Amino acid sequence: MVIGKVYLVGSGPGDPALLTVAAVRLLESADVVFHDDLVSSEILELIPERVHVESVGKRCGRARLAQHQIHSLMINAARDGCKVVRLKSGDPLIFGRAGEEIEALRRAGVEYEVVPGITAAFGAAARVGIPLTDRHLASKLVFLSNHQCAGKGLFDWSGVLAEDTTALIYMPGPDYGSLAERLTSEGLDPQTPCLVVSRATSAKQQVHFARLAGLAETPQHEAPAVLIVGAVAERYAAAADNPIRDAEALMFSADLRN
Amino acid sequence: MVIGKVYLVGSGPGDPALLTVAAVRLLESADVVFHDDLVSSEILELIPERVHVESVGKRCGRARLAQHQIHSLMINAARDGCKVVRLKSGDPLIFGRAGEEIEALRRAGVEYEVVPGITAAFGAAARVGIPLTDRHLASKLVFLSNHQCAGKGLFDWSGVLAEDTTALIYMPGPDYGSLAERLTSEGLDPQTPCLVVSRATSAKQQVHFARLAGLAETPQHEAPAVLIVGAVAERYAAAADNPIRDAEALMFSADLRN
Repeated sequence: MVIGKVYLVGSGPGDPALLTVAAVRLLESADVVFHDDLVSSEILELIPERVHVESVGKRCGRARLAQHQIHSLMINAARDGCKVVRLKSGDPLIFGRAGEEIEALRRAGVEYEVVPGITAAFGAAARVGIPLTDRHLASKLVFLSNHQCAGKGLFDWSGVLAEDTTALIYMPGPDYGSLAERLTSEGLDPQTPCLVVSRATSAKQQVHFARLAGLAETPQHEAPAVLIVGAVAERYAAAADNPIRDAEALMFSADLRN
Repeated sequence: MVIGKVYLVGSGPGDPALLTVAAVRLLESADVVFHDDLVSSEILELIPERVHVESVGKRCGRARLAQHQIHSLMINAARDGCKVVRLKSGDPLIFGRAGEEIEALRRAGVEYEVVPGITAAFGAAARVGIPLTDRHLASKLVFLSNHQCAGKGLFDWSGVLAEDTTALIYMPGPDYGSLAERLTSEGLDPQTPCLVVSRATSAKQQVHFARLAGLAETPQHEAPAVLIVGAVAERYAAAADNPIRDAEALMFSADLRN
């Protein structure tokens, strides 16, 4: 019996040109792709028609499948001899359940490999043109999730939000009022610059700059979004006041099959 | 006069298959590439022969060129009408001087664009197969640099190293004794698992597991390295005791020009 293999692959933030070469090859040679809902449609369109593609993601917090069912799907497909791609938006190893998926594959004796991807915050920072660390502004970078963990409530952020830190907050919305209160109660200055980037790197990217004091008035935007908090975000406001970049869309052409 | 453009591009951690599609296209179509010393030779070999390739990096802390000279090189090449790639290892926007380079380009009125890359820690975590966050082990991720900032000494880490945090420490070596003392003085348990990954994702990748109490005995290895500190690193030790992955090298074939 030939046993297949499972590849946990990051799709990057949305623009197909930000897929890694390894990810493109795997999508082109896979037998089965199980993907999260946040993987962009432009990326799913790259998968050849012969490949079985199935969404196993969540929408509005409601899971289509329980986590153990996702494990079973992957393990069974691998035992059927398939080359399985488990496609996750961004990088597979942060703010997802890759740890549990890896454990399940290990216990089942199924070979696996992880292929990293560009996480949303790095894609967002690149497109808005701001550094995430800077000799004068920020020596540290902290990734936080504003998602509530079942049974645990909100994660503890105490002590991590210092002045010389850039915070990258995943799943920030839609309640920016509560989030602003939370950041203020952690001691951040009300003048701290904040940048919300929604659907980073996609054709539908939206960017909103605010001071922490005005973050509650963030307009509605589509998920996924990432919030960049810290002095580096000021650079975006400065550049927006004095733009030199042309208005061309920064998307690369999506034909990756040359 | 046609003015060129500067692309600040992340090369990823080392494996050419972890370049983004956008980065491959830019390297193939550039007129000039200015690269850091940590960009892997496998990646430099992908650049067509007609492209002018120049190292502007540091070795052992000694800069070949001052930062303002790097700025001048990029600006002059763009003013000569060139398509310029400024190639940085990992992602261009953390722990480098991309912020200063962006400012210099803006002041000179030179168009620029940033292309994100896979940062070393994400590459390392993928290859050792451990999650960076986990519902039960780590809710936060913090990126730190152990490099001394000229005039500032070591950066302040107080408060950021909590039990539910995964810390990713760039430029950790060679003095692991001092680093272990520093981490211990920040309140980390001596039993905290630590994973040193040197030359992550390259053919020369080396991995060393230690408890914080034994981190000082880390063997010599080649730069660049990244240190992963926190409960998630335990997963590597658990997997190493009971391996299921085959011993094949995880490098993808380097022929990206198909």
